Amino acid sequence: MREPFSATVLTLFPEAFPGVLGASLIGRALKQQKWQLETLDIRSFSHHKHASVDDTPAGGGPGMVLRPDVAAMAIDSVTDKNRPLIHLSPRGKPLTQTRVRELAAGPGVVLFCSRFEGLDQRVIDGRDMEEMSIGDYVLAGGEVAAQVLIEACVRLLPGVLGDMMSTHEESFEGDLLEYPQYTRPRVWEDQQIPEVLLSGDHGRIARWRREAAIGLTKRVRPDLMDRARHRSKDDEHH
Amino acid sequence: MREPFSATVLTLFPEAFPGVLGASLIGRALKQQKWQLETLDIRSFSHHKHASVDDTPAGGGPGMVLRPDVAAMAIDSVTDKNRPLIHLSPRGKPLTQTRVRELAAGPGVVLFCSRFEGLDQRVIDGRDMEEMSIGDYVLAGGEVAAQVLIEACVRLLPGVLGDMMSTHEESFEGDLLEYPQYTRPRVWEDQQIPEVLLSGDHGRIARWRREAAIGLTKRVRPDLMDRARHRSKDDEHH
Repeated sequence: MREPFSATVLTLFPEAFPGVLGASLIGRALKQQKWQLETLDIRSFSHHKHASVDDTPAGGGPGMVLRPDVAAMAIDSVTDKNRPLIHLSPRGKPLTQTRVRELAAGPGVVLFCSRFEGLDQRVIDGRDMEEMSIGDYVLAGGEVAAQVLIEACVRLLPGVLGDMMSTHEESFEGDLLEYPQYTRPRVWEDQQIPEVLLSGDHGRIARWRREAAIGLTKRVRPDLMDRARHRSKDDEHH
Repeated sequence: MREPFSATVLTLFPEAFPGVLGASLIGRALKQQKWQLETLDIRSFSHHKHASVDDTPAGGGPGMVLRPDVAAMAIDSVTDKNRPLIHLSPRGKPLTQTRVRELAAGPGVVLFCSRFEGLDQRVIDGRDMEEMSIGDYVLAGGEVAAQVLIEACVRLLPGVLGDMMSTHEESFEGDLLEYPQYTRPRVWEDQQIPEVLLSGDHGRIARWRREAAIGLTKRVRPDLMDRARHRSKDDEHH
């Protein structure tokens, strides 16, 4: 049997874990050992006075930078080298559902969470870290970004969401945002469920949903429409 | 004195909070009441059998959809109507640092976290919810997205990060990714800190950092470079 997906998190705040990853179906899957979570306290790898981990930036500027020697000691303590080593940073490549799928299909991830002004560039280069950003905003640290990445991967693992949940037909699984959903009651605050959805005509329903998904994507995410168009052009050429 | 920034989270998993928001400087600021966190359990607003909150999608398809009546009862229980009501959803507009700044400058946020296949569209429309996505990947639920949004806002509040931390000169605060950082030791694993950073010449350091930031942004995020270029064209025209 395949070893379960394993996430190791290097952090200055191990108390932030499991956090949200201990709740809901993701947390239940953790208890059932369908995936594994290990946290390592970066501070425990410091051999400096007062377990210091950071110092002022070379060249000046505000904030503090994580020392390369301490960071490397923490990274090198992870003996299993088969998993990608990822530094969560706003300087990284944007995380996509495609990358999530790749990671979820592998043995797991080693995630490095920095704080302060960041991590000494020599460790990023020297340990060949993959830098990844979860979005175009600034966080206080990489911990919540690590939780985002882990949750996105774990929900794709076999048996985690259960049969009633679907990992298909969702936003970003295709190139379109998801169509609107409705459920009971049929009338709520004088608003009806669109008649077509109650028609039982599967062809009409599928067409209506596709049109609705295209309309929403055009309105909210024209950038995704462009991407979809480029892709279909590529398909024609190959 | 201004009331502190207040986050109310509507969730099926209140046990997921404070999670990461209880750790580090963000958690310390919470204890010091520099911001407030309230969680409301959506399930407690159900008047259905077994406190049921969801039902099958109208028109068929996998998964379960959150009922509009239950969701509206939860939303309407929040009496303070001055805060934006945000539905965290991959169907939403991407969260940006600009929106984070706006939200952090206001009274707070009311965040709705859905699970399953989503939330009945009639509540999204009927309660005029702002739909927001933290990135182009799929999560198991909105809880970790809510934590991302809250952390991004709270770190900008006065007195949260402290004087030694900087909220300036960071990635996405301008249109460039941040330049590389270095700190002690001067030599680590035979790698030196770039000489210019030790020169004490502030002009040269600033130029080097700007060039490095431009190089990184071009390589990792050409889309941001395009945005920056469009903006400077706009500036010329106005």
